[in-house]
Amino acid sequence: MAMKIDILTLFPEMFEIFNHSIIGKAINNDIIKITAHNIRDYSLNKHKKVDDYPYGGGAGMVMTPQPIVDSIKNLKQYNKGKVIFLGPRGKKFNQDIAKKLAQENELIFLCGHYEGIDERVYKYIDMEISLGDFVLTGGEMACIPIVDSICRLIPGVLSSEESYMEESFYNGVLEYPQYTRPESFEGEKVPEILLSGHHENIRKWRRTQSLLITKNRRPDLFNKLKLSKEDKKLLQK
Amino acid sequence: MAMKIDILTLFPEMFEIFNHSIIGKAINNDIIKITAHNIRDYSLNKHKKVDDYPYGGGAGMVMTPQPIVDSIKNLKQYNKGKVIFLGPRGKKFNQDIAKKLAQENELIFLCGHYEGIDERVYKYIDMEISLGDFVLTGGEMACIPIVDSICRLIPGVLSSEESYMEESFYNGVLEYPQYTRPESFEGEKVPEILLSGHHENIRKWRRTQSLLITKNRRPDLFNKLKLSKEDKKLLQK
Repeated sequence: MAMKIDILTLFPEMFEIFNHSIIGKAINNDIIKITAHNIRDYSLNKHKKVDDYPYGGGAGMVMTPQPIVDSIKNLKQYNKGKVIFLGPRGKKFNQDIAKKLAQENELIFLCGHYEGIDERVYKYIDMEISLGDFVLTGGEMACIPIVDSICRLIPGVLSSEESYMEESFYNGVLEYPQYTRPESFEGEKVPEILLSGHHENIRKWRRTQSLLITKNRRPDLFNKLKLSKEDKKLLQK
Repeated sequence: MAMKIDILTLFPEMFEIFNHSIIGKAINNDIIKITAHNIRDYSLNKHKKVDDYPYGGGAGMVMTPQPIVDSIKNLKQYNKGKVIFLGPRGKKFNQDIAKKLAQENELIFLCGHYEGIDERVYKYIDMEISLGDFVLTGGEMACIPIVDSICRLIPGVLSSEESYMEESFYNGVLEYPQYTRPESFEGEKVPEILLSGHHENIRKWRRTQSLLITKNRRPDLFNKLKLSKEDKKLLQK
């Protein structure tokens, strides 16, 4: 059964991005089904308005509850998945959340805009996710990488070759340096050891590089690592 | 002078997303110029290949240095900006980085794919940025929200109404609840205080809500706050 993802947004055109690359291929292969719906279509206002001034004053516009709630209710008829709101008050997205959501069969994403959504919409929301501590023009900009990150974990989306990366990054260490053809580029050569054919030495070299790079650039990740005996030995050298 | 952003990618079509919404408007108004270039066009390989097997073995493909370096060299003729690589070993993106980069006149973004780029490309890179601790199908998925987040800070991109949000979020507290029309929605009423017209009481209520929501959902942010005397008083109630 294909993973069914419905997205509520004021800018459904933006989700044409999923026609490309790896996700586009998975959609063509019926592994995922992504549909973007325009919240504006559900507005009962005669001008199809979807926002209004905030009660209590203040700058910015707030999304009115009616079009959002009606669009959620409509979707719920054929998508029983969690309703996920992309918003700054949410839990910060990470690989664990991606893994968890990739196990669902159906998901609904709600993209906010303007100064936010009317608080009374929250009772229709199961989960709020934030992409990180920065401000975007709209929820779509968070929804796109999050959907991408979830979808690539669904079996059949990535080839076995493509799916390798995660394992190396999510052992909690950063990637070791990679080299490919040519052997010498602008006078700079591939490290001798990678040409040696000595698998065990290559493995140790790569592990050392990963540990050093992680220690250097992401001490927060490094401090969480449970170093093996071998790791400690490699780092001492 | 318009902010000039050039993007190096294997999927230039993906950046059509910037034709929409707020960023699209800024492009039409000549405030920003975003151009996506296909790295593949620079490949000297007769099949326009851009990747190859990693030296030392292992799964996945690595992007070869030649097409990337030649595309950077070509761009540098008319874009003197920093070269920013979107990669998992980079500094985690946040609002401070967005603010800093929004002050530049020119920027070049490099989107990686597959198992990564050949390490010898790094000497052409000024800065590596990661969107967060999760894996994406490609650098494009990080580049898009990052460019969005930078561009919305460029003067003239947002209307004064739209630009409000940041200030509230980046006082280090999360947003207070917002309400708009109608006054009663599905039996749930807007909090009395917001209808009172008493600006000082509204301000205090909103500040209290922001503090409580931040304390609850983002203790990491809350612990960094320097609470004023008033804040402490509001929280005691």
